[in-house]
Amino acid sequence: MNAPLPLKAATLHDVAREAGVSLITASRALSNPGVVSDKTIARVQQAVEATGYIPNLLAGSLKSKRSLMVAGIVPALSVQQFLPTVQMLTTTLAAAGYQLILGQTNYDPEQEEAVLNTMISRQPDGIVMTGLVRSQKARDRLRRANIPVVETWDLSDRPVDMLVGFSHLKVGGAVAGYFLSKGWQHLGIASGNDHRAMQRREGFLATLGHDVPLAIVPAPSSLELGRQALAELMQKDPALQAVCCSSDQLAHGVLVEAQARGLRVPQDLAVFGFGNADFSAHMVPSISTIHVDGPEIGRLAAQLIIDRCRGATIERPVIDVGFRIIERQSTTL
Amino acid sequence: MNAPLPLKAATLHDVAREAGVSLITASRALSNPGVVSDKTIARVQQAVEATGYIPNLLAGSLKSKRSLMVAGIVPALSVQQFLPTVQMLTTTLAAAGYQLILGQTNYDPEQEEAVLNTMISRQPDGIVMTGLVRSQKARDRLRRANIPVVETWDLSDRPVDMLVGFSHLKVGGAVAGYFLSKGWQHLGIASGNDHRAMQRREGFLATLGHDVPLAIVPAPSSLELGRQALAELMQKDPALQAVCCSSDQLAHGVLVEAQARGLRVPQDLAVFGFGNADFSAHMVPSISTIHVDGPEIGRLAAQLIIDRCRGATIERPVIDVGFRIIERQSTTL
Repeated sequence: MNAPLPLKAATLHDVAREAGVSLITASRALSNPGVVSDKTIARVQQAVEATGYIPNLLAGSLKSKRSLMVAGIVPALSVQQFLPTVQMLTTTLAAAGYQLILGQTNYDPEQEEAVLNTMISRQPDGIVMTGLVRSQKARDRLRRANIPVVETWDLSDRPVDMLVGFSHLKVGGAVAGYFLSKGWQHLGIASGNDHRAMQRREGFLATLGHDVPLAIVPAPSSLELGRQALAELMQKDPALQAVCCSSDQLAHGVLVEAQARGLRVPQDLAVFGFGNADFSAHMVPSISTIHVDGPEIGRLAAQLIIDRCRGATIERPVIDVGFRIIERQSTTL
Repeated sequence: MNAPLPLKAATLHDVAREAGVSLITASRALSNPGVVSDKTIARVQQAVEATGYIPNLLAGSLKSKRSLMVAGIVPALSVQQFLPTVQMLTTTLAAAGYQLILGQTNYDPEQEEAVLNTMISRQPDGIVMTGLVRSQKARDRLRRANIPVVETWDLSDRPVDMLVGFSHLKVGGAVAGYFLSKGWQHLGIASGNDHRAMQRREGFLATLGHDVPLAIVPAPSSLELGRQALAELMQKDPALQAVCCSSDQLAHGVLVEAQARGLRVPQDLAVFGFGNADFSAHMVPSISTIHVDGPEIGRLAAQLIIDRCRGATIERPVIDVGFRIIERQSTTL
């Protein structure tokens, strides 16, 4: 058995004693190394390693007025579309010494306002939103708080501050153009009830020029909801030929329900998704979908915050990363 | 158009002026309301609302020595198994006024140590790990830092501090017992290379009493890797009857690859997963799996931190939430 550990955190005093220097020298070696010799810095750093001393960043950040924290706000962590963005955001920020504080809005403007107030009170060095800040009150507060804000995964003429995203209206239009080029007559839409999915639906219908049967499910979407949506659409139009889905999760559910009803995809029913989830390319049939570069959105958002914190001029405060159609087996006759 | 907004954050002075009270009264009404009349508190709170004043929690937490932040460490955000835990952790903590700071280890003990050091330096009120803290150095530092720690999703006789989880060895044994009861002769394992999956494999083989063909894939697992794993296992044993997978994502890939090879599940090949992902019950065939109550792990972990911060005595610092076998179509002949 090991000897019991000393259960006391090492202090700067311990570091100074271990290094054989004064407290003020140890402090300078860590916070203002330009005024201390390299040899002393090396000794103090050895002592830091030996004692396991960890500086108090909380006190440091109050002094520097920088918290080295960035708030990331998502609708819900279970929404898989945003995970590659949040993962890359976390990684890019961590590499520059920033940590992500996480908040969830559950697609609710009141919760959005509450979580943003909480975040502002923690004085983060930046705030990254998935989606636009919907509440006008929250937008006003964010502007007054003077904290860098990056809205993502959407596009707006009037962002709170900075933005990295793409146009959901254009996505809807592009998918409708694709459906028109196929000559399908009996169309349907399976869609989540969130703002971004509704914008895509609007773009789809505007380009199509007429209404089609809708099955609206509560966000976040899932395979189960996709099955329900197809059942609803088949009831509305038994001659249904093609379904436009607001996520690959819904499209997966539509595929399974079609299979359970003995329908062949795409011969009897074509299926189109959104988000290019990690499974979509590898299914049988593989799922046609819209690809958005989620990691790149996270990387660019992190970089905008980091650049702003460094006092750099932001040349492009609004970045449209676009999207592309990926045609796979589920829509290829 | 609205008038341009004043781009200046409201201060406590603004609140005091708006409420018609002195600065010290406004301050007391917010931080020490017991010494101020209810009428004054109401007036000050109205003024807070009217001015949009948000207190500086960063300064407040240095004074109170409480940061109202809890660090949550995951291998990677893309590991879907942990999402319901992290989501409930975030929700439960937020309801008690705590925010989650997020860190990723990428299944790397060195990154785990680095991210824990960073977190300790931010003085969180608690740290919640998915999995056990693997690095001995990190374990020592956590003990010395004297911060409440909850390890989750695993079991250990010697946790750093507190623990909410279950035994992966027992899971492996229970799945092997289920396979034995079915009388299958030609078995295979498709498994991620992470510590927890390896423990389940160990339990499986120990109960089985003999080795079986293995296909090891890098964590985190995916449908694509599941397809590759089945291809590898079929090569090792063309008479394969049943596959035990370390996640439902891998099991999904095995199902798709079986389908692509013209194999019927479960008649030609039985498939068993782990984690009871949201899609597993709704597929055709539905996937037999191990259910773990992920949200409950998150809720209990948050509650342990909250209780400890309130100075309560923790009656059960180690909680085994167990698991259960869910038998579905993919293993029911």
